[in-house]
Amino acid sequence: MLTISEKFARLGTDHAPGQEVRQDRVAQDTDLRGDVIAGTPVDFSHGDVNDDAFAPTPGAFEEFVAGVERGGSQAYTEYRGGAELRDSLGERLTHFTGKPVSGADELIITPGTQGALFLALGATVNTGDRVAVVRPDYFANRKLVEFLGGVVVPVRMDYLAHTDGAGLDLGQLEDAFKSGVKTFLFSNPNNPAGVVYTAAEIARIAELATTYGATVIVDQLYSRLLYSGSTYTHLRASNIDANQVVTIMGPSKTESLSGYRLGVAFGAPHIIDRMEKLQAIVSLRAPGYSQAVLRTWFAEPDGWLQDRIALHQALRDELLGVFATVPELVVRAPQAGSYLFPKLPALDVSLHDFVRALRVQAGVTVTPGTEFSPESTDSIRLNFSQNHDAAVQAAHRIAQLIERYRADVGAVRAGIAQ
Amino acid sequence: MLTISEKFARLGTDHAPGQEVRQDRVAQDTDLRGDVIAGTPVDFSHGDVNDDAFAPTPGAFEEFVAGVERGGSQAYTEYRGGAELRDSLGERLTHFTGKPVSGADELIITPGTQGALFLALGATVNTGDRVAVVRPDYFANRKLVEFLGGVVVPVRMDYLAHTDGAGLDLGQLEDAFKSGVKTFLFSNPNNPAGVVYTAAEIARIAELATTYGATVIVDQLYSRLLYSGSTYTHLRASNIDANQVVTIMGPSKTESLSGYRLGVAFGAPHIIDRMEKLQAIVSLRAPGYSQAVLRTWFAEPDGWLQDRIALHQALRDELLGVFATVPELVVRAPQAGSYLFPKLPALDVSLHDFVRALRVQAGVTVTPGTEFSPESTDSIRLNFSQNHDAAVQAAHRIAQLIERYRADVGAVRAGIAQ
Repeated sequence: MLTISEKFARLGTDHAPGQEVRQDRVAQDTDLRGDVIAGTPVDFSHGDVNDDAFAPTPGAFEEFVAGVERGGSQAYTEYRGGAELRDSLGERLTHFTGKPVSGADELIITPGTQGALFLALGATVNTGDRVAVVRPDYFANRKLVEFLGGVVVPVRMDYLAHTDGAGLDLGQLEDAFKSGVKTFLFSNPNNPAGVVYTAAEIARIAELATTYGATVIVDQLYSRLLYSGSTYTHLRASNIDANQVVTIMGPSKTESLSGYRLGVAFGAPHIIDRMEKLQAIVSLRAPGYSQAVLRTWFAEPDGWLQDRIALHQALRDELLGVFATVPELVVRAPQAGSYLFPKLPALDVSLHDFVRALRVQAGVTVTPGTEFSPESTDSIRLNFSQNHDAAVQAAHRIAQLIERYRADVGAVRAGIAQ
Repeated sequence: MLTISEKFARLGTDHAPGQEVRQDRVAQDTDLRGDVIAGTPVDFSHGDVNDDAFAPTPGAFEEFVAGVERGGSQAYTEYRGGAELRDSLGERLTHFTGKPVSGADELIITPGTQGALFLALGATVNTGDRVAVVRPDYFANRKLVEFLGGVVVPVRMDYLAHTDGAGLDLGQLEDAFKSGVKTFLFSNPNNPAGVVYTAAEIARIAELATTYGATVIVDQLYSRLLYSGSTYTHLRASNIDANQVVTIMGPSKTESLSGYRLGVAFGAPHIIDRMEKLQAIVSLRAPGYSQAVLRTWFAEPDGWLQDRIALHQALRDELLGVFATVPELVVRAPQAGSYLFPKLPALDVSLHDFVRALRVQAGVTVTPGTEFSPESTDSIRLNFSQNHDAAVQAAHRIAQLIERYRADVGAVRAGIAQ
């Protein structure tokens, strides 16, 4: 079997030129209870980028148009993205993360953050490699490891047992490293739970990665949308060798620029090099004209980010208020980002059936917790970057349907006793 | 080891939410002979999409803008692309290829045709699988197989020995199938040689794939730009089981829409399904707003395609005329597409050094033949979708540099005699 270095040495590019809809088709709705509840449909599976919800960054479209007008030089860039743009982003991300980022050697522009994640994993994980993955965490993480022939080593994160910190089981992470894990992948803020790792948790992750010589890939997609009272610690700026960290970000969430499919990865130069070689055969480059939109990133109008945070925070608090009225529903207030991950009361239908009932009977689309952890069989994820009033009304409909499908507690207890 | 089916079964998405610049940095130019030749620089490594060369399809930009205006519904589509658009493309590709394409089940929209190729190979090639790859052919093909842990089984294509047909060694292809190859990947028209497979060649490929139960992935990226006197045969419409063929196309070449990064793959439904699952972890989807640009594809203004073909054919013929003046240069007239793949006279510098001299001394960027086949050590590839006059002048500069670096024939013959 080839080593990862040998594999990538053979991928040289030096001389190279650059679903919920589907379920409705087969749905069996015979077990639904009661009538449809009227209301504006809300798709919480992703943010709403329309003008009456959270529109793309001001000036983004104009930068795209200017890119089209530049023509060929914008359509065809180096595989890792246009050099001038990378230099500019490097400076901005140096400022944001508190540690130098070289646009020339340490940054790649990708088709979405999903593209960045795939390339980062593809550049570090070889067949048979063991990779530590948090539970719960972004749904694609375990799939990426598996597609690449790696072995997922789960690490528990008990976010509900904490009010400060993410609640990662650091002992279990060390056990994973002791067992031979050489790659650790996690999102911060966590997707789906919206919790932020404390400085102490990040320091310990850096210490363990140093001790065991592991590479850490950290998905910081939502790190700009930080609520009041929260503090964010960038792993790359902690006490860890720069060659051991790759950070993933992009303008698809906070900035609502998902329709342009842009992401960036920055960090360890040897991994960024491999990522570019892999990008050459996976997608060549991020869309040329779209890359121009990144000129607006970290260069938004004064006050824009603060306003966006305030609007999300107000909505977060109102949604938490609605869920607080539901007996036995447990949810932790997210410290950043726009995800809510409530743990539902005991229901007498399966999670997938309840999720389908929400869609069919309440016009509400959510993502089942099992996408994020096999143990999250009683949680649903909501991306609440939505029209405020529609989202609040939808939360009320969720509360109504929970009552409709709530388990008979006596029956459940009898079940437990058997 | 997992089978490919098992691997993809674990990648389910049912519940999921929705280089030449670098070389100049290290160039050693001490071996260059003579002065720089003045002239407009031409980058033949890819087509020129600027207004004075071959601009994007009329109406493409307007469709993009309309997509942005639609907002969220355009930004977020099913991973395989918007349903309505797929239906429309299915109808157009049915008409183009002469065999039905279901937009619902047999078509996926991808980030560029590179993305489509990666997904098609990723969906069919497992670790250790043997894959037949033509030499010469598109540079990424062998890299894709290698990244996926497959084994490349080369099949010769002697395009210079033929005036009709691509010249694929069909006996060698059968030997490959006999040796256990289950996947055959080729471009038609061939990239880099621009030659088109005859109906007889395609019929034999279909027959062999049927006999040996192989899957064929055919990259038809340039199949619309067909020169007068050429006939194109779609493999998918030949006598082969629909479940054994995936066809790759996209609007990045003939239509100059590369800045939007769009591709499509269509064919075997089970492979398209796998491709969508893989796309979910590789890039999620093609850029949402960009997808709208595909509305113009196969729906261009009357006469537009004919004009574009005529302009390319006139340029092809003038370039062939320039190269015909160079003693011992051999080139076959491309039957489709915008690639020229001349075999150069013996030089007394290496191919890579000559390619660098072209760039540094003549302002001409070409791709070395070794990207397409390890045996093509004496060929260069030009994408002549360029400004007409600039391209012709650049070809004259190539001819000049060939004379500057031409091997002393006596010395070469002495070398051969040793």
